[in-house]
Amino acid sequence: MRHTISVLVENQFGVLARVAGMFSGRGFNIESLNVGPAEKKDFSRITATINADNDDLDQCVKQLRKLVSVIEVNHFCNKDAYVARELLMIKVLANEKTRQSIMQICDIFRAKVIDVSTKSLNIEITGNENKIKAFLEMIKPFDILQLARTGNVALNRGDAY
Amino acid sequence: MRHTISVLVENQFGVLARVAGMFSGRGFNIESLNVGPAEKKDFSRITATINADNDDLDQCVKQLRKLVSVIEVNHFCNKDAYVARELLMIKVLANEKTRQSIMQICDIFRAKVIDVSTKSLNIEITGNENKIKAFLEMIKPFDILQLARTGNVALNRGDAY
Repeated sequence: MRHTISVLVENQFGVLARVAGMFSGRGFNIESLNVGPAEKKDFSRITATINADNDDLDQCVKQLRKLVSVIEVNHFCNKDAYVARELLMIKVLANEKTRQSIMQICDIFRAKVIDVSTKSLNIEITGNENKIKAFLEMIKPFDILQLARTGNVALNRGDAY
Repeated sequence: MRHTISVLVENQFGVLARVAGMFSGRGFNIESLNVGPAEKKDFSRITATINADNDDLDQCVKQLRKLVSVIEVNHFCNKDAYVARELLMIKVLANEKTRQSIMQICDIFRAKVIDVSTKSLNIEITGNENKIKAFLEMIKPFDILQLARTGNVALNRGDAY
Protein backbone atom coordinates (compact mmCIF):
# COMPACT_ATOMS: atom_id res chain seq x y z
CA MET A 1 0.00 0.00 0.00
CA ARG A 2 1.04 3.56 -0.72
CA HIS A 3 1.70 5.82 2.29
CA THR A 4 2.64 9.45 2.72
CA ILE A 5 4.75 10.35 5.74
CA SER A 6 5.95 13.74 6.89
CA VAL A 7 8.94 14.03 9.23
CA LEU A 8 10.01 17.25 10.95
CA VAL A 9 13.75 17.16 11.62
CA GLU A 10 16.49 19.37 13.01
CA ASN A 11 18.99 20.49 10.37
CA GLN A 12 21.84 18.30 11.44
CA PHE A 13 24.49 16.46 9.54
CA GLY A 14 23.32 13.16 8.04
CA VAL A 15 19.70 13.33 9.19
CA LEU A 16 18.35 12.89 5.62
CA ALA A 17 20.53 9.82 5.12
CA ARG A 18 19.33 8.37 8.45
CA VAL A 19 15.63 8.86 7.64
CA ALA A 20 15.98 7.56 4.05
CA GLY A 21 18.04 4.65 5.38
CA MET A 22 15.24 3.77 7.81
CA PHE A 23 12.90 3.21 4.85
CA SER A 24 15.28 1.53 2.44
CA GLY A 25 16.88 -0.59 5.17
CA ARG A 26 13.49 -2.26 5.63
CA GLY A 27 13.17 -2.90 1.93
CA PHE A 28 10.42 -0.31 1.50
CA ASN A 29 10.23 1.12 -1.98
CA ILE A 30 10.64 4.94 -1.74
CA GLU A 31 8.45 6.19 -4.57
CA SER A 32 9.31 9.82 -3.91
CA LEU A 33 10.93 11.90 -1.20
CA ASN A 34 11.53 15.57 -0.71
CA VAL A 35 13.16 17.73 1.92
CA GLY A 36 13.07 21.50 2.31
CA PRO A 37 12.95 24.24 4.95
CA ALA A 38 10.11 23.93 7.52
CA GLU A 39 8.06 26.50 9.48
CA LYS A 40 10.79 26.97 12.11
CA LYS A 41 14.32 28.18 11.43
CA ASP A 42 16.98 25.41 11.46
CA PHE A 43 14.36 22.71 10.89
CA SER A 44 13.49 20.82 7.72
CA ARG A 45 10.49 18.77 6.70
CA ILE A 46 10.95 15.47 4.86
CA THR A 47 7.90 14.13 3.01
CA ALA A 48 8.16 10.58 1.68
CA THR A 49 5.76 8.45 -0.34
CA ILE A 50 6.52 4.78 0.13
CA ASN A 51 5.07 1.37 -0.61
CA ALA A 52 4.79 -0.80 2.50
CA ASP A 53 2.43 -3.01 4.51
CA ASN A 54 0.52 -1.25 7.29
CA ASP A 55 2.11 -3.24 10.13
CA ASP A 56 5.65 -2.88 8.81
CA LEU A 57 5.12 0.83 8.44
CA ASP A 58 3.72 1.30 11.97
CA GLN A 59 6.88 -0.30 13.27
CA CYS A 60 9.03 1.96 11.12
CA VAL A 61 7.19 5.12 12.27
CA LYS A 62 7.86 4.13 15.90
CA GLN A 63 11.56 3.73 15.12
CA LEU A 64 11.67 7.04 13.25
CA ARG A 65 10.32 8.81 16.35
CA LYS A 66 13.29 7.48 18.32
CA LEU A 67 15.90 8.85 15.89
CA VAL A 68 18.11 11.71 17.02
CA SER A 69 17.09 15.01 15.32
CA VAL A 70 13.58 13.73 14.53
CA ILE A 71 11.04 16.04 16.20
CA GLU A 72 7.72 14.84 14.83
CA VAL A 73 6.42 12.11 12.50
CA ASN A 74 3.05 12.40 10.80
CA HIS A 75 1.59 9.40 8.97
CA PHE A 76 -1.22 10.54 6.68
CA CYS A 77 -3.63 7.59 6.90
CA ASN A 78 -7.15 8.78 6.22
CA LYS A 79 -7.54 10.11 2.67
CA ASP A 80 -10.33 12.49 3.73
CA ALA A 81 -8.26 14.04 6.51
CA TYR A 82 -5.36 15.48 4.50
CA VAL A 83 -4.50 17.21 1.24
CA ALA A 84 -1.49 16.13 -0.82
CA ARG A 85 -0.04 17.88 -3.85
CA GLU A 86 2.83 17.26 -6.23
CA LEU A 87 4.63 19.39 -8.81
CA LEU A 88 5.56 17.97 -12.19
CA MET A 89 7.67 19.56 -14.93
CA ILE A 90 7.99 18.00 -18.37
CA LYS A 91 9.59 18.76 -21.72
CA VAL A 92 7.39 17.41 -24.53
CA LEU A 93 8.23 17.06 -28.21
CA ALA A 94 6.01 19.59 -30.02
CA ASN A 95 6.01 21.06 -33.51
CA GLU A 96 3.60 23.36 -35.32
CA LYS A 97 1.20 20.47 -35.94
CA THR A 98 1.03 19.00 -32.44
CA ARG A 99 1.43 22.15 -30.34
CA GLN A 100 -2.23 23.06 -30.32
CA SER A 101 -3.40 19.61 -29.20
CA ILE A 102 -0.91 19.64 -26.34
CA MET A 103 -1.98 23.11 -25.25
CA GLN A 104 -5.62 22.02 -25.25
CA ILE A 105 -4.79 19.20 -22.85
CA CYS A 106 -2.86 21.71 -20.69
CA ASP A 107 -5.91 23.98 -20.57
CA ILE A 108 -8.17 21.16 -19.38
CA PHE A 109 -5.76 20.18 -16.60
CA ARG A 110 -4.85 23.80 -15.81
CA ALA A 111 -1.23 23.05 -16.58
CA LYS A 112 1.03 25.98 -17.55
CA VAL A 113 3.30 26.16 -20.59
CA ILE A 114 6.44 27.83 -19.21
CA ASP A 115 8.73 27.64 -22.23
CA VAL A 116 8.43 26.99 -25.95
CA SER A 117 10.82 26.29 -28.81
CA THR A 118 10.32 25.10 -32.38
CA LYS A 119 10.69 21.49 -31.28
CA SER A 120 9.39 21.32 -27.70
CA LEU A 121 7.27 22.72 -24.86
CA ASN A 122 8.12 22.93 -21.14
CA ILE A 123 5.03 22.37 -19.02
CA GLU A 124 4.36 22.74 -15.28
CA ILE A 125 1.42 21.15 -13.45
CA THR A 126 0.42 20.83 -9.79
CA GLY A 127 -2.12 18.38 -8.43
CA ASN A 128 -2.86 15.23 -6.51
CA GLU A 129 -1.74 11.78 -7.60
CA ASN A 130 -4.79 11.07 -9.78
CA LYS A 131 -4.64 14.37 -11.65
CA ILE A 132 -0.93 13.99 -12.43
CA LYS A 133 -1.50 10.40 -13.55
CA ALA A 134 -4.39 11.36 -15.86
CA PHE A 135 -2.39 14.26 -17.32
CA LEU A 136 0.63 12.04 -18.04
CA GLU A 137 -1.60 9.44 -19.74
CA MET A 138 -2.87 12.14 -22.13
CA ILE A 139 0.57 13.63 -22.81
CA LYS A 140 2.52 10.37 -23.23
CA PRO A 141 1.59 9.83 -26.93
CA PHE A 142 3.36 13.12 -27.81
CA ASP A 143 6.73 11.87 -26.50
CA ILE A 144 7.98 13.11 -23.14
CA LEU A 145 11.66 14.09 -23.53
CA GLN A 146 12.34 14.92 -19.91
CA LEU A 147 10.37 14.66 -16.68
CA ALA A 148 11.04 15.90 -13.15
CA ARG A 149 8.58 15.48 -10.29
CA THR A 150 8.89 16.57 -6.70
CA GLY A 151 6.84 13.86 -5.00
CA ASN A 152 3.99 14.65 -2.60
CA VAL A 153 3.90 17.27 0.08
CA ALA A 154 0.91 17.03 2.43
CA LEU A 155 -0.95 18.90 5.17
CA ASN A 156 -3.79 17.80 7.45
CA ARG A 157 -7.16 19.35 6.68
CA GLY A 158 -8.86 21.58 9.24
CA ASP A 159 -7.06 22.72 12.37
CA ALA A 160 -5.03 19.55 12.96
CA TYR A 161 -1.28 19.90 12.42
CA MET B 1 26.60 30.28 -4.02
CA ARG B 2 23.31 28.52 -4.61
CA HIS B 3 23.27 25.76 -7.25
CA THR B 4 20.59 23.51 -8.70
CA ILE B 5 21.67 20.07 -9.86
CA SER B 6 19.59 17.36 -11.50
CA VAL B 7 20.77 13.75 -11.40
CA LEU B 8 19.20 10.93 -13.41
CA VAL B 9 19.70 7.62 -11.61
CA GLU B 10 18.74 3.99 -11.95
CA ASN B 11 16.30 2.81 -9.28
CA GLN B 12 18.73 0.79 -7.26
CA PHE B 13 19.13 0.20 -3.58
CA GLY B 14 20.89 3.01 -1.72
CA VAL B 15 21.40 5.34 -4.69
CA LEU B 16 19.64 8.25 -2.94
CA ALA B 17 21.85 7.82 0.13
CA ARG B 18 24.98 7.73 -2.09
CA VAL B 19 24.07 10.91 -3.97
CA ALA B 20 23.00 12.77 -0.79
CA GLY B 21 26.17 11.53 0.92
CA MET B 22 28.27 12.94 -1.92
CA PHE B 23 26.96 16.44 -1.10
CA SER B 24 26.91 16.25 2.69
CA GLY B 25 30.27 14.41 2.85
CA ARG B 26 31.86 17.52 1.31
CA GLY B 27 30.19 19.74 3.87
CA PHE B 28 27.81 21.26 1.29
CA ASN B 29 24.61 22.56 2.79
CA ILE B 30 21.67 20.76 1.08
CA GLU B 31 18.97 23.43 1.05
CA SER B 32 16.43 21.15 -0.58
CA LEU B 33 16.37 17.82 -2.39
CA ASN B 34 13.69 15.80 -4.09
CA VAL B 35 13.51 12.49 -5.87
CA GLY B 36 10.70 11.04 -7.95
CA PRO B 37 10.04 8.91 -11.06
CA ALA B 38 11.78 10.10 -14.27
CA GLU B 39 10.84 9.93 -17.96
CA LYS B 40 12.03 6.32 -18.31
CA LYS B 41 10.68 3.37 -16.35
CA ASP B 42 12.95 2.19 -13.49
CA PHE B 43 14.77 5.52 -13.41
CA SER B 44 14.43 8.39 -10.94
CA ARG B 45 15.46 12.01 -11.06
CA ILE B 46 17.04 13.68 -8.03
CA THR B 47 17.03 17.49 -7.98
CA ALA B 48 19.11 19.16 -5.28
CA THR B 49 19.62 22.80 -4.38
CA ILE B 50 22.86 23.26 -2.50
CA ASN B 51 25.18 25.99 -1.27
CA ALA B 52 28.76 25.51 -2.45
CA ASP B 53 31.71 27.24 -4.12
CA ASN B 54 31.91 26.86 -7.89
CA ASP B 55 35.20 24.94 -7.87
CA ASP B 56 34.17 22.57 -5.09
CA LEU B 57 30.94 21.86 -6.89
CA ASP B 58 32.62 21.15 -10.27
CA GLN B 59 34.72 18.56 -8.49
CA CYS B 60 31.64 17.05 -6.88
CA VAL B 61 29.77 16.87 -10.22
CA LYS B 62 32.71 14.97 -11.72
CA GLN B 63 32.60 12.49 -8.83
CA LEU B 64 28.81 12.12 -9.12
CA ARG B 65 29.20 11.11 -12.78
CA LYS B 66 31.48 8.26 -11.70
CA LEU B 67 28.95 6.81 -9.21
CA VAL B 68 27.31 3.48 -10.00
CA SER B 69 23.64 3.94 -11.04
CA VAL B 70 24.17 7.60 -12.00
CA ILE B 71 23.27 8.05 -15.68
CA GLU B 72 23.40 11.80 -16.16
CA VAL B 73 24.22 14.92 -14.13
CA ASN B 74 22.96 18.34 -15.13
CA HIS B 75 24.30 21.44 -13.39
CA PHE B 76 22.00 24.38 -14.08
CA CYS B 77 24.49 27.27 -14.26
CA ASN B 78 23.10 30.02 -16.46
CA LYS B 79 19.93 31.52 -14.99
CA ASP B 80 18.60 32.45 -18.45
CA ALA B 81 19.00 28.92 -19.76
CA TYR B 82 16.70 27.01 -17.42
CA VAL B 83 13.37 27.25 -15.58
CA ALA B 84 13.05 26.16 -11.96
CA ARG B 85 9.87 25.81 -9.93
CA GLU B 86 9.00 24.83 -6.39
CA LEU B 87 5.76 23.85 -4.66
CA LEU B 88 4.93 25.20 -1.21
CA MET B 89 2.04 24.22 1.08
CA ILE B 90 1.29 26.13 4.27
CA LYS B 91 -1.29 26.16 7.04
CA VAL B 92 -1.87 29.73 8.24
CA LEU B 93 -3.74 30.92 11.31
CA ALA B 94 -6.88 32.66 9.98
CA ASN B 95 -10.11 33.79 11.58
CA GLU B 96 -13.07 35.79 10.24
CA LYS B 97 -11.12 39.04 10.63
CA THR B 98 -7.87 38.04 8.92
CA ARG B 99 -9.18 35.59 6.30
CA GLN B 100 -9.92 38.24 3.69
CA SER B 101 -6.50 39.88 3.90
CA ILE B 102 -4.81 36.51 3.48
CA MET B 103 -6.98 35.64 0.51
CA GLN B 104 -6.14 38.96 -1.13
CA ILE B 105 -2.43 38.14 -0.88
CA CYS B 106 -3.16 34.69 -2.35
CA ASP B 107 -4.97 36.30 -5.30
CA ILE B 108 -2.02 38.56 -6.08
CA PHE B 109 0.44 35.65 -6.02
CA ARG B 110 -2.01 33.25 -7.73
CA ALA B 111 -1.81 30.95 -4.72
CA LYS B 112 -4.74 28.56 -4.14
CA VAL B 113 -6.65 28.10 -0.89
CA ILE B 114 -7.16 24.33 -0.74
CA ASP B 115 -8.77 23.95 2.69
CA VAL B 116 -10.44 26.19 5.24
CA SER B 117 -11.53 25.84 8.86
CA THR B 118 -12.70 28.36 11.48
CA LYS B 119 -9.11 28.82 12.66
CA SER B 120 -6.88 28.23 9.63
CA LEU B 121 -6.36 28.12 5.86
CA ASN B 122 -4.33 25.60 3.84
CA ILE B 123 -2.64 27.29 0.89
CA GLU B 124 -0.75 25.94 -2.14
CA ILE B 125 1.59 28.02 -4.32
CA THR B 126 3.98 27.20 -7.16
CA GLY B 127 6.73 29.47 -8.39
CA ASN B 128 10.39 30.28 -8.61
CA GLU B 129 12.55 31.11 -5.61
CA ASN B 130 11.82 34.84 -5.65
CA LYS B 131 8.06 34.45 -5.88
CA ILE B 132 7.93 31.95 -3.01
CA LYS B 133 10.17 34.21 -0.91
CA ALA B 134 8.02 37.29 -1.55
CA PHE B 135 4.83 35.35 -0.77
CA LEU B 136 6.23 34.03 2.52
CA GLU B 137 7.30 37.54 3.54
CA MET B 138 3.72 38.75 3.10
CA ILE B 139 2.13 35.77 4.87
CA LYS B 140 4.53 35.54 7.83
CA PRO B 141 2.78 38.22 9.96
CA PHE B 142 -0.37 36.04 10.04
CA ASP B 143 1.44 33.14 11.75
CA ILE B 144 2.43 30.11 9.70
CA LEU B 145 1.44 26.98 11.66
CA GLN B 146 2.90 24.43 9.28
CA LEU B 147 5.00 24.59 6.13
CA ALA B 148 6.10 21.95 3.62
CA ARG B 149 8.10 22.74 0.49
CA THR B 150 9.33 20.42 -2.20
CA GLY B 151 12.51 22.20 -3.24
CA ASN B 152 13.25 23.11 -6.85
CA VAL B 153 12.71 21.00 -9.91
CA ALA B 154 14.27 22.38 -13.09
CA LEU B 155 14.36 21.93 -16.87
CA ASN B 156 16.56 23.54 -19.52
CA ARG B 157 14.83 26.08 -21.74
CA GLY B 158 14.50 25.44 -25.46
CA ASP B 159 15.46 22.12 -26.99
CA ALA B 160 18.39 21.31 -24.69
CA TYR B 161 17.82 18.43 -22.30
